[in-house]
Amino acid sequence: MNVAANITPALSVRGEFPAIAGWHYLDSAATAQKPQAVIDAITRGYDRDYATVHRGVYERSAVMTQAYENARAAVASFIGAANANEMVFTRNATEAINLVAQTLPKGGRDRVLLSELEHHSNIVPWQLAGYAIDVVPITADGLIDLDAAERMISDQHRVVALAHVSNVLGSILDAKRAAEIAHSKGALLLLDGCQAAPRIPVDVQDIDCDFYALSAHKLYGPTGLGCLWGRGELLNALPPYQGGGAMIDSVTFERTTFAPPPQRFEAGTPHIVGAVGLHSAIDWVNSVGLNAIHAHETALVHECREALRRINSVRLFGPEDSAGIVSFAIHGVHPHDIGTILDDEGVAIRAGHHCAQPLMKVLGVPATARASFAAFSDSSDIEALVKGIDKVLRIFGQ
Amino acid sequence: MNVAANITPALSVRGEFPAIAGWHYLDSAATAQKPQAVIDAITRGYDRDYATVHRGVYERSAVMTQAYENARAAVASFIGAANANEMVFTRNATEAINLVAQTLPKGGRDRVLLSELEHHSNIVPWQLAGYAIDVVPITADGLIDLDAAERMISDQHRVVALAHVSNVLGSILDAKRAAEIAHSKGALLLLDGCQAAPRIPVDVQDIDCDFYALSAHKLYGPTGLGCLWGRGELLNALPPYQGGGAMIDSVTFERTTFAPPPQRFEAGTPHIVGAVGLHSAIDWVNSVGLNAIHAHETALVHECREALRRINSVRLFGPEDSAGIVSFAIHGVHPHDIGTILDDEGVAIRAGHHCAQPLMKVLGVPATARASFAAFSDSSDIEALVKGIDKVLRIFGQ
Repeated sequence: MNVAANITPALSVRGEFPAIAGWHYLDSAATAQKPQAVIDAITRGYDRDYATVHRGVYERSAVMTQAYENARAAVASFIGAANANEMVFTRNATEAINLVAQTLPKGGRDRVLLSELEHHSNIVPWQLAGYAIDVVPITADGLIDLDAAERMISDQHRVVALAHVSNVLGSILDAKRAAEIAHSKGALLLLDGCQAAPRIPVDVQDIDCDFYALSAHKLYGPTGLGCLWGRGELLNALPPYQGGGAMIDSVTFERTTFAPPPQRFEAGTPHIVGAVGLHSAIDWVNSVGLNAIHAHETALVHECREALRRINSVRLFGPEDSAGIVSFAIHGVHPHDIGTILDDEGVAIRAGHHCAQPLMKVLGVPATARASFAAFSDSSDIEALVKGIDKVLRIFGQ
Repeated sequence: MNVAANITPALSVRGEFPAIAGWHYLDSAATAQKPQAVIDAITRGYDRDYATVHRGVYERSAVMTQAYENARAAVASFIGAANANEMVFTRNATEAINLVAQTLPKGGRDRVLLSELEHHSNIVPWQLAGYAIDVVPITADGLIDLDAAERMISDQHRVVALAHVSNVLGSILDAKRAAEIAHSKGALLLLDGCQAAPRIPVDVQDIDCDFYALSAHKLYGPTGLGCLWGRGELLNALPPYQGGGAMIDSVTFERTTFAPPPQRFEAGTPHIVGAVGLHSAIDWVNSVGLNAIHAHETALVHECREALRRINSVRLFGPEDSAGIVSFAIHGVHPHDIGTILDDEGVAIRAGHHCAQPLMKVLGVPATARASFAAFSDSSDIEALVKGIDKVLRIFGQ
């Protein structure tokens, strides 16, 4: 794809992010900075609104309980879920995937189909849960090879678990086709939506997937909170994951009965203010619009790839239409050195294996440098990145 | 114990808590309100300091990583742990207990010794993990009967798991004796410290316990964060609980090796700002002093019990020297009605089973009303409580 460089992206929300003043933050795939509206919502949650949920008989607790449940409904609606009760709050997206891997009855099927580009959080949980793993390869431009997946799927696969957007390459999965492939043999489709949810519109009903995991802190929200969406009838059939308060119906030492989902999976006091903060983040994303954010990030990716391509020693990974993420390497320079020199120039990128060691092996590198964009990124970040890389090249005598 | 009423407590920190202006908040056993210093630390964490931990090559991520690890060291030191690496951050205290129940190898012992006053979070995890449960009774004034525990302990018990302070009765366990009893038969002692950590000085090495669970939000800190302390050699021997990024050493599809504790038990992006907020809360508690807080709450308990005792139809539960928690009932009035009428008077108490249904059965009530104190409580809260109860009695014609 040949796209003209220096497109000026349409969004201008940078001023709403107090933490990036004078800084070129290109590590949004690790975690997004927060708009002032979200910071204010969190502050209010700990200040004049603070109370516990679900248990208080006093007014402020009832109000906070409603706020917590409104947050659940907002996330559910954000990804097109049919029902707020299909949305479970977890510690993070990693815990969401572990919850499914640990509680889903195998039903006589002990294999899971993953891909070469999965994050460790979508590999290790399946290993710990005792699944045998089959691995779908990726194509030359870094997409999960669904033709291969179609040949590999069998009635021994309980789950197909794939990244909706790759955290290293930014490649976007054809999720509807992945669902068809999984369902063709009676397997379930779990999507790791950590990178997709902040970057592209998601509709779990339209995709027809079965589980969807996402992370609040990557979605402009607070840390310590993940979300697991599961199809209602599937969640209903899962046994509890953790035991404790709030997830029970009645407790005796002899026998405990459990609440229906989502409470069944939320043992103990939840991350109350986290949910309130995530609701604010979703309101913010909705007010900007995911189509606009996606177009903005795609334009920045094109601009960035065009600029990096002009540098001879740079190798670019991933597809041209990556969703906001550009992984690259510089011949003869370790990515950590790139990151360190760029840091001196006020540019924050990530360098490493990005919790995707198997993908590094496939790419034939120990690590990549990664620049990732968000709604608040703009062309000045790319200019600073390119200027910083010029310095890297000078230092390394290239 | 006969203590004069109307002792004026020595602490005067109420003004540091913005959320309770004009409000009599007596539900600190459910969750504590936050001092301004903690709210500010959280706001700063999401604002000018925000970055991910452990993975960034840029300065701000290195600084945040240090802040996160400093928080770990602060919690470890707060409860007298030998080493910061013995402290694991979890979703909440409930998850901390589940982590132990799920990962601890049973070693041929399949029984756990609990008590009648345990919170559901210290009952259900053991049921889910397949332990047979033996139940230590409580004494007439609401203490765990350690004489009975001594008779009941056997070499079939893998764990003795007890509340350090009861969330319903405020009774304080003789934790050192509990450790001796557990160890006399080679069992481990896990303490549920959710109510103890904010109320009394804790020293896990002096107690000689093996695991200690606590909750950040009950300790004047943020929601979404619990802490599990485990003796170093025990944590080292535990297999992973959840799989994902940050808890691994290396990942291939064939074989994954795991990081040492505490990272082994912290899969995925942690609650970064939660840890920073908890550190601030611990600094705040240390600046006030736990001995002062404990004396303050004990004085309020005496004052409250004396005042309630003057009302004929009130039944008081728990010991006279309860650590900040007073459970009571009014003859002929359901606790929920007490709570609702008090709410109209600007007094927030909790009414219900307090996630301790087995204890309610022992007490012979479906529920209790519970007033619980914190460092910010004072005599005006008790006056408002008593005035509110007068109204309850008037409404119910007593």
